[in-house]
Amino acid sequence: MALTPEQEAEIEALRASPRPTLRAVSEGMEAHMYRAHPVLDHGFVRVIDYMGDDAAICQAARVSYGKGTKSVSNDEGLIRYLMRHWHSTPFEMCEVKFHVKLPIFVARQWIRHRTANVNEYSARYSILDREFYIPRPEHLAAQSTANAQGRGEVLEGEEAERVLEILKSDAARAYEHYEEMLSQEGGRKGLARELARMNLPANIYTQWYWKIDLHNLLHFLRLRADSHAQYEIRAYAEVICGIVRDWVPLAWAAFEDYRLGGATLSARALDCLRRMLAGETVTEESSGMSKGEWREFRALFPGQG
Amino acid sequence: MALTPEQEAEIEALRASPRPTLRAVSEGMEAHMYRAHPVLDHGFVRVIDYMGDDAAICQAARVSYGKGTKSVSNDEGLIRYLMRHWHSTPFEMCEVKFHVKLPIFVARQWIRHRTANVNEYSARYSILDREFYIPRPEHLAAQSTANAQGRGEVLEGEEAERVLEILKSDAARAYEHYEEMLSQEGGRKGLARELARMNLPANIYTQWYWKIDLHNLLHFLRLRADSHAQYEIRAYAEVICGIVRDWVPLAWAAFEDYRLGGATLSARALDCLRRMLAGETVTEESSGMSKGEWREFRALFPGQG
Amino acid sequence: MALTPEQEAEIEALRASPRPTLRAVSEGMEAHMYRAHPVLDHGFVRVIDYMGDDAAICQAARVSYGKGTKSVSNDEGLIRYLMRHWHSTPFEMCEVKFHVKLPIFVARQWIRHRTANVNEYSARYSILDREFYIPRPEHLAAQSTANAQGRGEVLEGEEAERVLEILKSDAARAYEHYEEMLSQEGGRKGLARELARMNLPANIYTQWYWKIDLHNLLHFLRLRADSHAQYEIRAYAEVICGIVRDWVPLAWAAFEDYRLGGATLSARALDCLRRMLAGETVTEESSGMSKGEWREFRALFPGQG
Amino acid sequence: MALTPEQEAEIEALRASPRPTLRAVSEGMEAHMYRAHPVLDHGFVRVIDYMGDDAAICQAARVSYGKGTKSVSNDEGLIRYLMRHWHSTPFEMCEVKFHVKLPIFVARQWIRHRTANVNEYSARYSILDREFYIPRPEHLAAQSTANAQGRGEVLEGEEAERVLEILKSDAARAYEHYEEMLSQEGGRKGLARELARMNLPANIYTQWYWKIDLHNLLHFLRLRADSHAQYEIRAYAEVICGIVRDWVPLAWAAFEDYRLGGATLSARALDCLRRMLAGETVTEESSGMSKGEWREFRALFPGQG
Repeated sequence: MALTPEQEAEIEALRASPRPTLRAVSEGMEAHMYRAHPVLDHGFVRVIDYMGDDAAICQAARVSYGKGTKSVSNDEGLIRYLMRHWHSTPFEMCEVKFHVKLPIFVARQWIRHRTANVNEYSARYSILDREFYIPRPEHLAAQSTANAQGRGEVLEGEEAERVLEILKSDAARAYEHYEEMLSQEGGRKGLARELARMNLPANIYTQWYWKIDLHNLLHFLRLRADSHAQYEIRAYAEVICGIVRDWVPLAWAAFEDYRLGGATLSARALDCLRRMLAGETVTEESSGMSKGEWREFRALFPGQG
Repeated sequence: MALTPEQEAEIEALRASPRPTLRAVSEGMEAHMYRAHPVLDHGFVRVIDYMGDDAAICQAARVSYGKGTKSVSNDEGLIRYLMRHWHSTPFEMCEVKFHVKLPIFVARQWIRHRTANVNEYSARYSILDREFYIPRPEHLAAQSTANAQGRGEVLEGEEAERVLEILKSDAARAYEHYEEMLSQEGGRKGLARELARMNLPANIYTQWYWKIDLHNLLHFLRLRADSHAQYEIRAYAEVICGIVRDWVPLAWAAFEDYRLGGATLSARALDCLRRMLAGETVTEESSGMSKGEWREFRALFPGQG
Repeated sequence: MALTPEQEAEIEALRASPRPTLRAVSEGMEAHMYRAHPVLDHGFVRVIDYMGDDAAICQAARVSYGKGTKSVSNDEGLIRYLMRHWHSTPFEMCEVKFHVKLPIFVARQWIRHRTANVNEYSARYSILDREFYIPRPEHLAAQSTANAQGRGEVLEGEEAERVLEILKSDAARAYEHYEEMLSQEGGRKGLARELARMNLPANIYTQWYWKIDLHNLLHFLRLRADSHAQYEIRAYAEVICGIVRDWVPLAWAAFEDYRLGGATLSARALDCLRRMLAGETVTEESSGMSKGEWREFRALFPGQG
Repeated sequence: MALTPEQEAEIEALRASPRPTLRAVSEGMEAHMYRAHPVLDHGFVRVIDYMGDDAAICQAARVSYGKGTKSVSNDEGLIRYLMRHWHSTPFEMCEVKFHVKLPIFVARQWIRHRTANVNEYSARYSILDREFYIPRPEHLAAQSTANAQGRGEVLEGEEAERVLEILKSDAARAYEHYEEMLSQEGGRKGLARELARMNLPANIYTQWYWKIDLHNLLHFLRLRADSHAQYEIRAYAEVICGIVRDWVPLAWAAFEDYRLGGATLSARALDCLRRMLAGETVTEESSGMSKGEWREFRALFPGQG
């Protein structure tokens, strides 16, 4: 359970009192406000605030005085045009702020996206909670034999049990020792928090406020909702995908078509396609591609050749 | 007059229909929404959207589940602490979007602030309006004789008249020629807009949507509302200062005290102050400062020495 | 002629005295150092400094202690892999600094790329030179009738002559008036430089130092060396392409294959390709694409359907 | 010992072969190239590359064709002027690339500085080394009783011994279990590296390539070489301070005077100083400052009042 009853009550209190605003409102997003979407065993994603909607993208693209919307179909066409031609600045005109609870090893990947604003819970100032990510058995993957940066099959039997036992007992011991080092009982001074935290493993949970514009958020999702991303960060990205879909449905649909479901092909790949369309049978050898490129190309066009 | 009746009507229509939201609302900012604050002869600043308020700064600093506010005095103390110790990330958690109409030479200074999002009216795609900035007589300043980058006295008499005549007639002629080059009448093809615009002078007005977080906005205001900034961009900065004061009054008060009204002193200057407080009479020679530093130091502490 | 004899002499003096360094050296880039590549009628691009080479990309990707290079073919494969999978951070490890002279309307497009460092010649502090961009007859394009943001045929005859006459005479008059307003002769005070400049048209030349990392430079080149970019900025981008090719030949080759010569296809486009490869004849109607998308798709695969 | 003999040999090989370059060369920086400056028990900082020197700052500020240097004293005055008036862009024209080895909890603070380029050693792809930061006894500080975010006295006796024992034994056990989970011996599949790393504590060492411009580096140093920064990151900042001093001595001297040794005073503090200079005795009550502000003010001006 990610939230305490007190925290749930605070959230319900915030949701209980809507106030009038003259700003653009996204009904889809209002439904998400403050609610905690659970992720992994103790994590969550909550929408704290947002700015703009689909119409705001068009309004900025047109630098208009009023709403900037002409009609939904007109807006849809403009948004698809902007997405197709990499006109990123209108998408930067929407902004969203999340409260996220996540394991530190996920936070370390996440923070690599620099074009965002972050306030993290301070382990110099405060004491971290006793909450650790322990993978569910079906996520206990073996090292991939094909790909140095990937996962293979799922561990089973004794091996899986031993791994879970290690993760649980090491976390428990590390946290006990963290508390012991901090303790000021029995005349002890207590180690500084900023030092004691160094004993905690990377699966302990932290939390932060994270604010980002829609263009950079979509870039984050393209990389982190991708099948090559580590499962644990992908779990967060997928929850955020669902939120974005409700917030800006037209931008989301364009993103799905042009980015998530699309592909960037090299000059070599385009040339192979042209030859294949002209009836030629192209092989790895005649493609001019490396082994890896060819494999990726065949995954996109499996039926042919 | 900066807006047409149609544009005014669009703005009033937007202001006529408040909608409920669960987000943080700043009453001071709602009063500004969409309205055009006039600047210079044809320019304006309009608030199009905003995110957050004073409480949101505290909420992010505390990474809290609920409002994050304990009491106004508590929040004020926290905000002053954050400002004093250059903790900039909580201020990044507020965001604002403006629609600005401004002369191109002002836009060229403004755009140097890179940590912002911009959509500018495209003179490749559209035709610019016939609106040029012509300074009022009291802003027709001579080149400073003391400072290569400054203004001196105000021009007067024939010299002032001649300057105004030049600015007006050159602008008028440039715009007539712009229209002539674009014209497709009489069998002409009409020069491409992206080329014809090169004939227009830097005092023609452009407009853009500009979105920025509060931390970076305050940095912009510190530089551009400063007495060393060019008058024409300062006029915009001062209007924005008034808007920020209404939006986040606690953050604004801390900014006024620590930044606008404060000063950064060098180690040499601190040393001089200590000596002066101990009763020593410090002179330019004994200060160790350069002529310019000493002048700036004396401006801060005029009564002594 | 873009440079004075004194400036040429300064450049030759800089090129005359190589000094030993322990840093990575790119021979291809050393040949460019300081030299002015002419662009348009009075502009240029000069390399002032650079950091890193192809090997530095690999070294950073491997976080290695030494050179990080194993073999040229190994490095080539790694660089292609990084480019293909959008691993941008190793490319950020190379940096380049240019001195560019360019018309103001080009500078205004250029500066929209925010992830770069810029120092521009100050028209508040200094007086601009009397140099204006006047297009060559073959670049005097008409407004496109198909595309609001494009160029059509070239202007001819009287229309072309009239346009050139306007551009030349307006520029000459604007500059004379600029000088007149600045003048302190005959008891005049002289208008402040920061004000007088507002009379100058957008085809006057400015100059700046521009520093950017290789990843962001390649992004700039992808957008600005593209056939949809305005000719005048493309002229600069193409000169820079030639410089990058000499600086980091492996990264350049990967960029050419995956970005300049490649294409991003939507989910719909991929689906159409799969159907076409399976023998189906896909039409605009059955493609599910908009008119614009279909036109772009057919431009990539012209022979089929 | 931070480096193996093989690594030392690679570094010496790189230092053995200077090559000619036409770029700006900083002799002070050449002496640092590639060498590992030890920090903490297993960490280091190495300069991998740099761009620019003091003269390059002036050259960019002047947008000049040649060296841009007139004389050393002239350059010094310009650099001090730029620093005093927060003209940051010329300092952005210098760049430096470091290879740093550092504990993960230090890396987590460090990465908060977003305006930099980073390539970190990947624990998804590779196996981390068995190296953990264990504080020296004199750095084993107690939690401050005055400041929630600070250190107090040093732990002693049994308490200190127990803390060191915990840190060492937990690190050893965590690493043994890390290896055990990864192991593919005895028919085991071996847990994926990206999962196994979650068991490792925050004092394990990681390493990265970190590239940043001089302006942003000085900002980093102002915050991280400050007495309020955590000792462990300050140790890195202080080593980098020494490197910057050798690289750009004029910029460093201006930074020391205006930033490290200087102070930003609020309007209230300036007012108090003026009153004190006029002979008034100002007390905490009559200062209008909060308790914290007054304490900081008195620390700057200890002799008076």
